[in-house]
Amino acid sequence: MNIVVVGLGIIGGSMAKAVKKYTDSRVYGINRSPLPLKKALECGAIDEIGTVETLGKADIIVMGTFPEAAVEFVRKNADKINPNCIVTDTSGIKSKICPQMNEIAAEYGFSFVGFHPMAGKEKNGFDVSEADLFLGANAIIVPCDAPHTAVDKIAALAKKLGFGRITYASAEEHDRMIAFTSQLPHVIACSYVFSPLCPKHKGFSGGSYRDVSRVANINAELWSELFIENKQPLIDEIDTLIANLGMIKEGIESGDREQLASILHKGKLIKEALGE
Amino acid sequence: MNIVVVGLGIIGGSMAKAVKKYTDSRVYGINRSPLPLKKALECGAIDEIGTVETLGKADIIVMGTFPEAAVEFVRKNADKINPNCIVTDTSGIKSKICPQMNEIAAEYGFSFVGFHPMAGKEKNGFDVSEADLFLGANAIIVPCDAPHTAVDKIAALAKKLGFGRITYASAEEHDRMIAFTSQLPHVIACSYVFSPLCPKHKGFSGGSYRDVSRVANINAELWSELFIENKQPLIDEIDTLIANLGMIKEGIESGDREQLASILHKGKLIKEALGE
Repeated sequence: MNIVVVGLGIIGGSMAKAVKKYTDSRVYGINRSPLPLKKALECGAIDEIGTVETLGKADIIVMGTFPEAAVEFVRKNADKINPNCIVTDTSGIKSKICPQMNEIAAEYGFSFVGFHPMAGKEKNGFDVSEADLFLGANAIIVPCDAPHTAVDKIAALAKKLGFGRITYASAEEHDRMIAFTSQLPHVIACSYVFSPLCPKHKGFSGGSYRDVSRVANINAELWSELFIENKQPLIDEIDTLIANLGMIKEGIESGDREQLASILHKGKLIKEALGE
Repeated sequence: MNIVVVGLGIIGGSMAKAVKKYTDSRVYGINRSPLPLKKALECGAIDEIGTVETLGKADIIVMGTFPEAAVEFVRKNADKINPNCIVTDTSGIKSKICPQMNEIAAEYGFSFVGFHPMAGKEKNGFDVSEADLFLGANAIIVPCDAPHTAVDKIAALAKKLGFGRITYASAEEHDRMIAFTSQLPHVIACSYVFSPLCPKHKGFSGGSYRDVSRVANINAELWSELFIENKQPLIDEIDTLIANLGMIKEGIESGDREQLASILHKGKLIKEALGE
């Protein structure tokens, strides 16, 4: 297969490297700035630097750009995409992306399958990409209007690249769950390190600080887009969190140790029920 | 030296194992229930099961119990403690503990040095204790009224057990910092998993979910005591967090991507300034 990866950041770069490591496909890279392309070529993450003309021979196009930029790129170059091609993305939001991609795909005859790899790092860019980033990670597939054969091809590729569980969801379900599993932890991490005590933490901290603050080292441009394009589900989760923080705060203020313990104990029960 | 460890949970058990692994001291274990003592004896974490009579020959007594239970134990058995002995604890709170310990120590002539190992797991009990739990971890020493020689002995022991950085702090400073570095992440983890979406997270989650939810598997009895005995510093941190969550929420509601990005970017700057 010919696979074109557009946008060689940590996710696109890792996709390219994983495809090279785990499949026999030929990989073409397209990127706005030239440096990641040069590096990708040098380390064998891609076989060739692609151009928009390369899109015509692609079996799969993987969009590794920011979400809106992915739609713009596909819209602008739709007439060059082969009708047998499957376009997929790696966006952290789907409701704002999939309907537009669907529409373009329908007009030009190719397929679009939404894809979200649940892997990443607290750093960005091609330099931190790696072939094994996805080993055991969750993959979420949003089938959109694509035919089963196209959806199955993306799932099969995900399996080859080392993903663990594959979950199928509608765009709305994806966005609601991601608001909780991924976006809210980023909101928490930033809110947490904004405490005036944070710069003085060294010498006083352990694993709890490290874990909750990890993703505060955020790509602000990317996440501000993701947050705003998933506004309502994320605001619902922030409100739920604030209400729950308030409940624990009241338990602490009450000074009633048994009452507070019974609130906290629910946390243990939830984690145990999940086998965590 | 003769070291008596009272309370063989994860922390006391790990202290006993670390002393056996990294020093030539003889270790005596005292515990309310007999099973951890039996296990500790079998695996060589302690040399002997101690009794209150053993306290008389202790050079160092390490309290591994809950904070208030530590004060009660020391008060009840103060007349059996040798005046040359240093009593230390492992409590996560100090302002409510140290003055009482100081008073008892002054009355009976031994020394008390507050100690807080910044290490742990999301599981509890002797079974999950390990000799290398403290390798590289922060240790906080609250010198209280103890003579320098006693403080230095506890610091020297901490170094031998593998602790990394040793930080000296007043009880008040300790409690204020711990509210942020340790207690708040536990409050966050519980509040987070209380979301109705949590039980459905599998297939939709990655490292962010794992990290922020990890310590929700909480020892509710211990942490309700720690939270309530450090009420004001912790409530201040919860209030600060809620205000910061509200600020990010407003940024999302505004729909102004640049404004939101400039808020989030502060998180990156804070982490980068810390070299994290």
